[in-house]
Amino acid sequence: MINIVIIGEGNVGSHLASAFRMSRAQKRDVTVDVVNARTLKNLPSDADIYLICVNDDAIASVSDSLPIVNGIVAHTSGSIGIEALGRHHRRGVFYPLQTFTKGIELDYSEIPFFIEGSDSEVCSRLCDYAKLVSDAVRLAGSSDRALLHLAAVFACNFSNFLYTIADCIIKKGDMDFKLLLPLIRQSVEKVTHIAPQLAQTGPAVRGDFKVMQKQEIMLSSNPEYQEIYRLISKCILENQTQSKENC
Amino acid sequence: MINIVIIGEGNVGSHLASAFRMSRAQKRDVTVDVVNARTLKNLPSDADIYLICVNDDAIASVSDSLPIVNGIVAHTSGSIGIEALGRHHRRGVFYPLQTFTKGIELDYSEIPFFIEGSDSEVCSRLCDYAKLVSDAVRLAGSSDRALLHLAAVFACNFSNFLYTIADCIIKKGDMDFKLLLPLIRQSVEKVTHIAPQLAQTGPAVRGDFKVMQKQEIMLSSNPEYQEIYRLISKCILENQTQSKENC
Repeated sequence: MINIVIIGEGNVGSHLASAFRMSRAQKRDVTVDVVNARTLKNLPSDADIYLICVNDDAIASVSDSLPIVNGIVAHTSGSIGIEALGRHHRRGVFYPLQTFTKGIELDYSEIPFFIEGSDSEVCSRLCDYAKLVSDAVRLAGSSDRALLHLAAVFACNFSNFLYTIADCIIKKGDMDFKLLLPLIRQSVEKVTHIAPQLAQTGPAVRGDFKVMQKQEIMLSSNPEYQEIYRLISKCILENQTQSKENC
Repeated sequence: MINIVIIGEGNVGSHLASAFRMSRAQKRDVTVDVVNARTLKNLPSDADIYLICVNDDAIASVSDSLPIVNGIVAHTSGSIGIEALGRHHRRGVFYPLQTFTKGIELDYSEIPFFIEGSDSEVCSRLCDYAKLVSDAVRLAGSSDRALLHLAAVFACNFSNFLYTIADCIIKKGDMDFKLLLPLIRQSVEKVTHIAPQLAQTGPAVRGDFKVMQKQEIMLSSNPEYQEIYRLISKCILENQTQSKENC
């Protein structure tokens, strides 16, 4: 029997709770309690693992407010070090590289989990727990985790903002964002086969300055989007002239 | 019998040729000839449609170098107007909203095709030809096509460049870009269900300045990526405070 306590009821907490509950459906003997991070009401004292799933800024204070427990205390953040949990003897990091939105289901089994632990026994336990939900579990120290998180901000958060800009542009013609979905899906399909640098298409990589100039002018009602256009186009142009190895 | 001539042997030309040939496999009576755009060697004189699939800059000159034909002359560009084909009486635009890379196959049936024609008979013919390959054919004038193309640059070309940056970051930890694929796929899955503005996650939308500051510092060896980080984060922050309607 594995007793898991999730502290925090936000996106990450509720998704991890469903993920562990699904593993239970697969006949693994797991209990999952979700506890409010502010009140810690009904916090079980004998769990195997306490997963702190709160905003980065709150991790240290939630950790400090927990009683001393025998179980492992871990957080789920990409950018906070293990030392934020310093009060606890058996501590670790349990970082799922994924974007969680309430109400949108996902396939947990392919989410990469990156594990760090205060000692090898903690590492090995945390890996076992992560394997309850995922087939892609590996160890990573704080510096690799920070790189992963930064890469994820570009690949996921910032891409999503570019979709927001595209949505804004296409609405000016009373057209629907959904028209762009086949294109967006194919862009992702391409980078599953070839490196993104080799998959680059568009006016900037072709050095098509006439199109770039026209498109910049189209953005003149929004100087910030225009600046993003200019900056990324410039980088794409320069990137092509660099060695593929030297990024 | 429909006789199609593709002028240009690049990504767009070769993909459109395969797409039409696949429709032939479905027992539609189609011939497809691909012709080199510079030499126009073996150009058939009696085709129903001549599709100019060359770089935007070359469209007008290829159009001018074609003999006067009875068939429709069309280009496939998002950002060039129909008037570039002014020499030809029956002219049009046949714009597939997709990113084409040689050697990477795709499902043509869901690619949106945007059609414009010099008269309604040409429009209707071009729609029929597009329907040979796609289930998503619609009419669009030059101004809508320009909006679609600009939106596509953000949603596809620029997102791909963000993947390139992510690849560069993750390699600094000797890790593989493929680790990011489940996250990237899920980001796309989300915007098939909810508007991108509502799907936004990450440090900027949370207003997590500590993380943003750390991540900016991590990028100090590449001032341009740092500038992209700063600019997009700022826009995400501001966007959240705006009305969702006012983009």
